[in-house]
Amino acid sequence: LVGTELLTGSVQDRNLVELARALRALGIALVRAVVVGDDIDAIATEVKDLSDRVDVVFTSGGVGPTHDDVTIEAVAKAFGVGTVVDERMRRALEGHYGAPLSPDYLRMAKVPRGACLQMGPDQSWPTIVKENVWILPGVPNIFRHKLDVIRAHLRGPVAFRRAVVSCSLDELSLLAQLDGTVAKFPNVLVGSYPKANPSDPPTKVTFDGTDATEVENATQHFLGLLPDGCLLAVERN
Amino acid sequence: LVGTELLTGSVQDRNLVELARALRALGIALVRAVVVGDDIDAIATEVKDLSDRVDVVFTSGGVGPTHDDVTIEAVAKAFGVGTVVDERMRRALEGHYGAPLSPDYLRMAKVPRGACLQMGPDQSWPTIVKENVWILPGVPNIFRHKLDVIRAHLRGPVAFRRAVVSCSLDELSLLAQLDGTVAKFPNVLVGSYPKANPSDPPTKVTFDGTDATEVENATQHFLGLLPDGCLLAVERN
Repeated sequence: LVGTELLTGSVQDRNLVELARALRALGIALVRAVVVGDDIDAIATEVKDLSDRVDVVFTSGGVGPTHDDVTIEAVAKAFGVGTVVDERMRRALEGHYGAPLSPDYLRMAKVPRGACLQMGPDQSWPTIVKENVWILPGVPNIFRHKLDVIRAHLRGPVAFRRAVVSCSLDELSLLAQLDGTVAKFPNVLVGSYPKANPSDPPTKVTFDGTDATEVENATQHFLGLLPDGCLLAVERN
Repeated sequence: LVGTELLTGSVQDRNLVELARALRALGIALVRAVVVGDDIDAIATEVKDLSDRVDVVFTSGGVGPTHDDVTIEAVAKAFGVGTVVDERMRRALEGHYGAPLSPDYLRMAKVPRGACLQMGPDQSWPTIVKENVWILPGVPNIFRHKLDVIRAHLRGPVAFRRAVVSCSLDELSLLAQLDGTVAKFPNVLVGSYPKANPSDPPTKVTFDGTDATEVENATQHFLGLLPDGCLLAVERN
């Protein structure tokens, strides 16, 4: 997540949760998110590091026409290349703003050398992809729109399954049931979340995995350990 | 920010923006935020890296009584130490839950070896600090409460000053004015933000710095370059 505004508290990020949900639905595990300011070297260092460590990297923000939009240049730097005007991008911009483009507008046609452009299902605007780095905009409604491009091109190896159990007891009263379930189902990720908002139950327990049977068995095991009357709800997705 | 729930999209983070605002008001620049899951090694690696690079690190989340609360252990691991029961923490817990504590409750008295405890202005509950790492809870209303402890103990070297100019023109129509101001005031950080929500102006331009006169001069310079009639508002803080 690129943007000095996120580090000064001027803006509440809304993109991470949207990306996380979209990736999860595609069977892609999000393992790390990093927030950095509008600084070429900071972005480049982070992109290089993440690109080496994971299958796919997504950037949000820092694409646009102004001096503080430096993500394209930073991704280029991460891969040791410069930026070049992409002809398809130039034509797309000319279609929108009219030809020929002034130098200010032409700047928006620049991509990291060797990048490819991916179109979404509506063919409206290309998304720039350099190696395994997908460069997405920061404005939340445009970011959400770009998730359709990801959905059109990427797919994870498995479907994630989840059950959520809401209980009227607090976490401290559920330790034995939690520990018993965790020990018996090592392939199911069990999470325990105390009330964070007034409308939340005292404890939410989540069961996550890629094997639907194991997730269901772990959930049933936990439910069987619960004292009578403390179960509020079970949701599965 | 520690929490698998942030990486699966189950929970929208609310703590970063609160921390960012609190630090900014204290004159402390937030330079980086990282989101990792409930994984000891991932947290430990990140804490060690950040602790070496910056003056102060804050963690949010992963403190509590259940198996997926591993931040204390991870911070200990980051510094190559184990965890020990802290007597002050034990007494605080006994005051709350009654003595003697069962092993489940005693687990919450553990701190990284060599950690110190900091009290906030209300003296209600200690905050664990290991070296330069402040360990904060993830539940948003408790996290916000803990910001008072930070305010009581930490102070940055300077006050940040900011002006925000709202314009009725889009970014592309303001490039010359932006570039002219950026070139003339190298010590003022100029940010340009297109409309992100329906209630936003077409462009918000921010002027950030530590020298009130420079921030004001840059703002005035930019205002002087604006075409008639496109200024919507100027806010200063």
